[in-house]
Amino acid sequence: MLSSGARWLSMAPGLQGSRHTMATVISGKKASRLVSERLKEEVGKMRSQFSGFRPRLVVLQVGDRDDSNLYISTKLKAAAEIGIEATHVRLPSTATQDEVLQSIVSVNQNPSVHGLIVQLPLDSVRPVSTELITDSVCPEKDVDGLSCVNAGKLSRGNLSDCFIPCTPNGCMELIRQTGVSVLGKHAVVIGRSRIVGAPMRDLLLWSHATVTSCHSRTADLPAQVGRADILVVGAGRAEMVRGEWLKDGAVVIDCGINHVPDRTTASGKRVVGDVHYASANQRAGFITPVPGGVGPMTVAMLMQGSEKNWRRLGR
Amino acid sequence: MLSSGARWLSMAPGLQGSRHTMATVISGKKASRLVSERLKEEVGKMRSQFSGFRPRLVVLQVGDRDDSNLYISTKLKAAAEIGIEATHVRLPSTATQDEVLQSIVSVNQNPSVHGLIVQLPLDSVRPVSTELITDSVCPEKDVDGLSCVNAGKLSRGNLSDCFIPCTPNGCMELIRQTGVSVLGKHAVVIGRSRIVGAPMRDLLLWSHATVTSCHSRTADLPAQVGRADILVVGAGRAEMVRGEWLKDGAVVIDCGINHVPDRTTASGKRVVGDVHYASANQRAGFITPVPGGVGPMTVAMLMQGSEKNWRRLGR
Repeated sequence: MLSSGARWLSMAPGLQGSRHTMATVISGKKASRLVSERLKEEVGKMRSQFSGFRPRLVVLQVGDRDDSNLYISTKLKAAAEIGIEATHVRLPSTATQDEVLQSIVSVNQNPSVHGLIVQLPLDSVRPVSTELITDSVCPEKDVDGLSCVNAGKLSRGNLSDCFIPCTPNGCMELIRQTGVSVLGKHAVVIGRSRIVGAPMRDLLLWSHATVTSCHSRTADLPAQVGRADILVVGAGRAEMVRGEWLKDGAVVIDCGINHVPDRTTASGKRVVGDVHYASANQRAGFITPVPGGVGPMTVAMLMQGSEKNWRRLGR
Repeated sequence: MLSSGARWLSMAPGLQGSRHTMATVISGKKASRLVSERLKEEVGKMRSQFSGFRPRLVVLQVGDRDDSNLYISTKLKAAAEIGIEATHVRLPSTATQDEVLQSIVSVNQNPSVHGLIVQLPLDSVRPVSTELITDSVCPEKDVDGLSCVNAGKLSRGNLSDCFIPCTPNGCMELIRQTGVSVLGKHAVVIGRSRIVGAPMRDLLLWSHATVTSCHSRTADLPAQVGRADILVVGAGRAEMVRGEWLKDGAVVIDCGINHVPDRTTASGKRVVGDVHYASANQRAGFITPVPGGVGPMTVAMLMQGSEKNWRRLGR
């Protein structure tokens, strides 16, 4: 099942040859590094062809959430490594909706910026509509794929003509790297958010999987999960999916980032996914770890998402 | 399970009391008549409040397909009965894409028109992009819900802020009328078209069903269908779903309109759905007939879709 190029797939140490009892770990770190290296090379080529050229992204933040600060610094660092100039525009949490909109309009109109990322959630003390804000990013610079125009195109299957949200795009890349074909498989997606669940379902569907969307109102989640050849979880609930639920050999992609108390660590907490890793690892064929799975891929795909813009607009 | 108000549900003659062996027939004719009567009353009220007011729709046709002509005449007739002034704009099949776009722009800009329906498929001898055409209808007049802006909003669950394609909207209304609650149920949708399958999935999902999308690449369709509490079929293949596949008591909604040869009829053919009615009727709890099921509801919902526009814009 492993494609020969799947260098980022690795058995847990000491488990070589026992793939039927322990899952192959899909490393997002290694896969994302390959994406970054390729992008860095592309930027280099563009710069040698077009003197003075520089791909430019803007990350717009409202407020000062700790988690957002962390995500943004990761994005800025990833951009810098590739050679993308990423500017962090920060508005205070007291900014009005109109002020946020004005910031967006000015980036929309700036021809030297190739992509605009609005960091969510908006941390504002004023009434600001997230929907209105993300929809005001012009679809051509919406490298995060959060505007309804891009969501509509994706939902219809016009994948080549839209920006795809980076988390599900990263998940697809990780699935692809397992060598398991999606076509005709039964995929189950837990969650229906606009950032993960809904676009994930669309991507799997238009890769010709039969797709079941589950969520908080799903009646018998273990039974639904048990039919999944490919399972993607974006539920936001720590370790909710148990290994016993899984179909033997399933591909398990975990988008969860949850902080749980842990007295054995210096910080008193640790990060876990939406899947109970220890038990799932016994049953799955392939599994993404948390951290080090979907997370790094998300940032890499965000950079890759901007690529078509600077390749087109940069000329 | 029957709600007391479900006047349009009727047993097949002679089958009263045998609902466990024969399905209750969901009549789209009766349900659509109720919708039309309500709309007619609303138009009357609006006209008595605002002298000279008239809801206005434009149906734009390119070319001269027989089936399109038939559908359009049904729409015009339904509009006339309600008191909606529907204008049929017909462009020749030789019209260029620019000419079609110009027609759309002029309707977009005409404040007295409350809705614009582009009859599909476009019957053109020139290269005309259906996507581009439907996306050029301004989202506020896109009562058919075919633009990517409306598709994106629906896909995200913003049902109150978008126009919903009329066929799936009619299906939801028929499901609602059975009295069967959608929440937590397992719904299966066969087909993923932008007109039926994709929006149907979104509507069921945001009514909190667990939804499986099946299509031509689905590996074991009978097994998927067998898990459906609610089944909606928009596959475009005559009688492909067999009664034996169904879960006992399922709600079966058939969007198919297929012409098959029949020597016993004057025309030499007859209309059948995507579901094999005779066998499905033995297993389903509720079933829509073809014709007389989804078809009439589609037209009624198109008229209803325009309602929020003329109620808002008409003032």
